[in-house]
Amino acid sequence: MSLFLDAAWGKNTERAPIWIMRQAGRYLPEYRALKEKYSFWELCRTPELARLVTLQPIERFPLDAAILFQDIMTPLPPMGVDIDFRPGPVFENPIRSAAMVDTLRVPETGEIAPYVPEAIKLIRADSPVPLIGFGGAPLTLATYMIQGGGSKDYEEFRQFLRLEPQAAHKLLDKLTEVSIRYLKMQIEAGAQAIQLFDSWAGLHDTKTYAEFALPYNKRVFEALADLDIPRLYIAVNALHLYKEIETLPCEVVSIDWRAPIDVVRPQLGGKTVQGNLDPAVLLASKEIITREAERVLRSGLGGAHIFNLGHGIMKQTNPEHLAHLVETVQAFDRRRARESLGC
Amino acid sequence: MSLFLDAAWGKNTERAPIWIMRQAGRYLPEYRALKEKYSFWELCRTPELARLVTLQPIERFPLDAAILFQDIMTPLPPMGVDIDFRPGPVFENPIRSAAMVDTLRVPETGEIAPYVPEAIKLIRADSPVPLIGFGGAPLTLATYMIQGGGSKDYEEFRQFLRLEPQAAHKLLDKLTEVSIRYLKMQIEAGAQAIQLFDSWAGLHDTKTYAEFALPYNKRVFEALADLDIPRLYIAVNALHLYKEIETLPCEVVSIDWRAPIDVVRPQLGGKTVQGNLDPAVLLASKEIITREAERVLRSGLGGAHIFNLGHGIMKQTNPEHLAHLVETVQAFDRRRARESLGC
Repeated sequence: MSLFLDAAWGKNTERAPIWIMRQAGRYLPEYRALKEKYSFWELCRTPELARLVTLQPIERFPLDAAILFQDIMTPLPPMGVDIDFRPGPVFENPIRSAAMVDTLRVPETGEIAPYVPEAIKLIRADSPVPLIGFGGAPLTLATYMIQGGGSKDYEEFRQFLRLEPQAAHKLLDKLTEVSIRYLKMQIEAGAQAIQLFDSWAGLHDTKTYAEFALPYNKRVFEALADLDIPRLYIAVNALHLYKEIETLPCEVVSIDWRAPIDVVRPQLGGKTVQGNLDPAVLLASKEIITREAERVLRSGLGGAHIFNLGHGIMKQTNPEHLAHLVETVQAFDRRRARESLGC
Repeated sequence: MSLFLDAAWGKNTERAPIWIMRQAGRYLPEYRALKEKYSFWELCRTPELARLVTLQPIERFPLDAAILFQDIMTPLPPMGVDIDFRPGPVFENPIRSAAMVDTLRVPETGEIAPYVPEAIKLIRADSPVPLIGFGGAPLTLATYMIQGGGSKDYEEFRQFLRLEPQAAHKLLDKLTEVSIRYLKMQIEAGAQAIQLFDSWAGLHDTKTYAEFALPYNKRVFEALADLDIPRLYIAVNALHLYKEIETLPCEVVSIDWRAPIDVVRPQLGGKTVQGNLDPAVLLASKEIITREAERVLRSGLGGAHIFNLGHGIMKQTNPEHLAHLVETVQAFDRRRARESLGC
């Protein structure tokens, strides 16, 4: 076992394990160097390159887990959609009708991104720390598919959900099935945990989440229940959703930076909490990073805690600042802190 | 008095008054026609045009209040900043240092947008309903000033707050003073209520809001305390902030669409609640608009309620859908609904 897996399974470990969302990415000069030679899809689709990028942050920092380098869009092209990155995802033909939903295929496991299990095997052979696999939650994948790419307000998607609820459910059903096949494949290849990214869940009111997100997230997590890996979930901007999220069959909930862990934890029914430093703190000074990281660490003392940012690391971040954060978190003795706080 | 003012002052009126954020704007063909002839600043800075645009939605729909047509940037140019609209605000020279903050002027009342009181007088002469004046909250104004325009994550601003907290406080202090002068001027010219827009407050964690937003919002509202107008406040994405917001000396809090009114109201200490239909509902069918509007209306029965959207109306909205919404809200008898729900 490892510190990360212990905490993910609910153990109140003596120090908090740390990994960072988007830890393999644009803030690292060694990543940017590769990106000059290869397109984003090439990095994802070439197992040796995906291995290289996944391990870049592990070689630089003593992080407690690696996360597979891929995109949440990875499993979608075999459904019959064309996706480009400029640099955000752009769908050539956004799904805008029930008829278009009907044309989408649910590919067999072997047809979904076969380069992913290959990359996972290469990473597992070399990684000193556990490997987290991941996928997009069905609602979040549908958000991009229908909107056609990133957006401020996702009007097209929010309109579609209301005008074509049956077609939306059909699409979510297909995405759920593809996600289950894709995530099982990752676990069989060696992924030791799975995080489901529901990046846009927080855009919707509680009732819409309960109808269009919750049942599909449950199906995905239930399908992974017997595979002996911890299941992690993140929704950003989700303070109005935790009552629903608490019912998900998963072990870890990642929370963004808005509310402190000790305020959110009581709503999560004993699940491990992951988070929740504001990524913008890494743009400040080392002194401020220490102060704010320790604030998060103290706020996490009430139960199992995996340290992370509340959202992906920003591309402007100085890698030395991340090194300082990792050091700060790993030097923080949770048992001693609990004693000195009298809790 | 009017239904809108009654509800704003806390009266549990028999029907909920309705006005709509951005009701004067791009979803209206008559607005788009003017916009082809005039720039955005011309519409703001020509009192007759600002009157015309303010009253366009009032002539079309039986709304219960008008809101002044201006932008939250209106009072800023006399501080010494250049702002263009393309179509969102763009600052020619974003504020990125303490020295730049020092160069900013705090103009006398007479120097701040003298076209605004002129427009207000023209509107009051013609408007059958109360006129709401407004301004941006200091933190939100500072967000744009430092970032330099709209952004997804406002990294520059979030970094500045942490690296230069003293300069940030100096800027917020100046913006507070300008806001007070600007809003008092609106009230003296005839504005019958004031809404403070804190559009980006929800980006920050609770502690950051408590330090950089709350004291300045309090100062603005306190300065208006003796002027006999109701004070309205809106922060989007603010579920983690209501404990702080509850302490603001204002009469009305507008909430976005994420959580239902009956869930949020208990945190707001008896203030009037405004909101909170998801603007995307207006992109759906009339049948769905009726259903969702009535859900909001029922959820608002527990106290004073001003009906509104949870955010600005989307530019894609069919004006007939807004007409249908206004009709639905005005046909809803709150007393009868309370009786039939047994509350």
